[in-house]
Amino acid sequence: MTFQNNLSRAVARECLYPSYAGEHYFTFAEPPDVFILESGVPFGPITVNYQTYGKLSPRRDNAIYLAHALTGGSIVGSLPRQDKEQGWWEPLVGSGKAFDTERYYIICSNVLAGCYGSTGPASLDLRTGKPYGMKFPVVTIRDMVRVQKALLDHLGVEELLTVVGGSMGGMQALEWAITYPRKVRSVIAIACSGRFSPLGIAFNQAGRKAIMNDPAWQRGDYYGSAFPHQGLSLARIINTITYRSNDSFEKRFGRTLQRSREGNPFAFHEQFAVESYLQHQGDKLTHRFDANTYLYLSKAMDLHDLGRGYTSFQTALKRYQGTVLLVGINTDILFYPGEVGGLAVEMRRCGVDARYKELRSPHGHDSFLIEFQAMESIINEFLANN
Amino acid sequence: MTFQNNLSRAVARECLYPSYAGEHYFTFAEPPDVFILESGVPFGPITVNYQTYGKLSPRRDNAIYLAHALTGGSIVGSLPRQDKEQGWWEPLVGSGKAFDTERYYIICSNVLAGCYGSTGPASLDLRTGKPYGMKFPVVTIRDMVRVQKALLDHLGVEELLTVVGGSMGGMQALEWAITYPRKVRSVIAIACSGRFSPLGIAFNQAGRKAIMNDPAWQRGDYYGSAFPHQGLSLARIINTITYRSNDSFEKRFGRTLQRSREGNPFAFHEQFAVESYLQHQGDKLTHRFDANTYLYLSKAMDLHDLGRGYTSFQTALKRYQGTVLLVGINTDILFYPGEVGGLAVEMRRCGVDARYKELRSPHGHDSFLIEFQAMESIINEFLANN
Repeated sequence: MTFQNNLSRAVARECLYPSYAGEHYFTFAEPPDVFILESGVPFGPITVNYQTYGKLSPRRDNAIYLAHALTGGSIVGSLPRQDKEQGWWEPLVGSGKAFDTERYYIICSNVLAGCYGSTGPASLDLRTGKPYGMKFPVVTIRDMVRVQKALLDHLGVEELLTVVGGSMGGMQALEWAITYPRKVRSVIAIACSGRFSPLGIAFNQAGRKAIMNDPAWQRGDYYGSAFPHQGLSLARIINTITYRSNDSFEKRFGRTLQRSREGNPFAFHEQFAVESYLQHQGDKLTHRFDANTYLYLSKAMDLHDLGRGYTSFQTALKRYQGTVLLVGINTDILFYPGEVGGLAVEMRRCGVDARYKELRSPHGHDSFLIEFQAMESIINEFLANN
Repeated sequence: MTFQNNLSRAVARECLYPSYAGEHYFTFAEPPDVFILESGVPFGPITVNYQTYGKLSPRRDNAIYLAHALTGGSIVGSLPRQDKEQGWWEPLVGSGKAFDTERYYIICSNVLAGCYGSTGPASLDLRTGKPYGMKFPVVTIRDMVRVQKALLDHLGVEELLTVVGGSMGGMQALEWAITYPRKVRSVIAIACSGRFSPLGIAFNQAGRKAIMNDPAWQRGDYYGSAFPHQGLSLARIINTITYRSNDSFEKRFGRTLQRSREGNPFAFHEQFAVESYLQHQGDKLTHRFDANTYLYLSKAMDLHDLGRGYTSFQTALKRYQGTVLLVGINTDILFYPGEVGGLAVEMRRCGVDARYKELRSPHGHDSFLIEFQAMESIINEFLANN
């Protein structure tokens, strides 16, 4: 059950970044059906690229959804007959690992507006025969979750044992608990918040401007012509700074010059090692990620607010009856540990069984993609008791 | 004693941003003289725009040098016959104020590579008859201080009672103590460090890239044609984020939309209030500041390292015999208070009479330009006892 029809096959084939896409596709909201976005805009068709690991139990009670962060895709573990692609949580997903595929049925899909096989700004707009570009509608974290719900219905999964994610993935995990409180028994939300902070919005604004200032961006209509390489690279540099910490930069680079032997430290273009590293991170992303997807996902993060559409933030929190584990990172400069822990406190005040754990690491926000051993022990402990 | 000769007058007249320049000019290193920069590059002539307040006492023992931050100039208090320009520390400089002009002789000058009247990349390169642009040499915080020393010699000031500055100004204040330990009786260095952190370098790199990615920048040769407005504006946005804090953004804007009544929160170009504020800050700077000066001053900050040229950082610190007050700001995300306080500890270990004060404010790094009352009491207490 990969492609539903020729139309969606055409959409998926146009995907620019197929190498990070999982093996399976699911398409829905095909004419005459539509999917009504949180904004009220009708949209469709929607193709979802996904990957599963393990088997759904006869009782259908062993499903876990893993939600990816900004630049991730559906490949979270290793692919069966393919050794090349490393999944974004590979050390945590597999036989005998924290997300034990002998025991659990693991599902991960590329988010709506993504560029790894799911419908996004680089997909063909069937009305025009051209990629959507900036004609793609603004989507929210809640929309992503509602699309994931459609996928789970398709897979015959009625209840999730847990939903897990970090950063934008953590926002999705929390949104799952609030939007489908009876479908999710527990949530692990790492390095994220219940509503995105103005500091986070500010950094995202800077990243978006970097892309939109690039003349190659051409108001989003760059498909088939030059890619806004410089713009996306700078956006990635800005955001990567916020995913790391001064502790990690100090430990790894300090004030070392990149070419300390040959170079002249007083030459304008001489780089510190930290600059060279960030430049490399920025450039690397441009080979695997779509600039417009970056814009739409960063906008979705900005709009993240569990309370939107409810009479209050607290009213939204009170909907959830399951267990929540919030994980903060002591050196995170994008989601302060105090903010993550504060959400746990606020949830408990609203009657939710919410706990807080702090991961101690010099690596900042991205620690959940680096400190696998610590993550494993946190996840093991949680899954054993919930 | 403003202009030395026709050559330097020509240089100063070419200054693009004269409205923030003080009344006085001093020029030195004119042919056949040169000024040898820390890099070893011979440079000249150098014009310094400066402003003084109060009078030098007959004993010449009441001089205080105030060092400006990245986008400041020599106008630190109000100008005598001009009400329009507000100085950058106006509430602290004047008759009866913390820097009492009845008592002290206050000197402030625009830094080397600046754009408010001192020689910088927008000045005429007399060899070519065109503005320097990127042919301007890389200068360091130490070079700025050495130029200030030349100005003080010219003014007949042999010793400074104290040197005070915040951020890039604080770097200059510390560099004064190390480069001219016998000329400076005390130092107040606010929200700065002994060597710029890799996190700070990373943010500066992003700002520089924003400018250099702008096609209007034209490798620095934009004088007389379109100004790299978008690039400088984005650089300012990035840096302004680091000058504030999430606390201040939360207090001032939260997640409010800029046009919450008329606007559609799901429109891609709809802005949060924090975005609109940052956009305004970015655009505002482009009307008063030169993009190339931004590049050179941010590079000078990156190169800031009190220990450069000495056998060790500690060897450099040990040179100073006077009193140092380091002021950290609890919400500063560019110079963590722990970093500022840590320098005080390290200085004491090196035998320096160094103290640490923490300014508590939600406003982040820029608090020293906002919390005038707190600054006043810190300065009053220090000056009364030193």
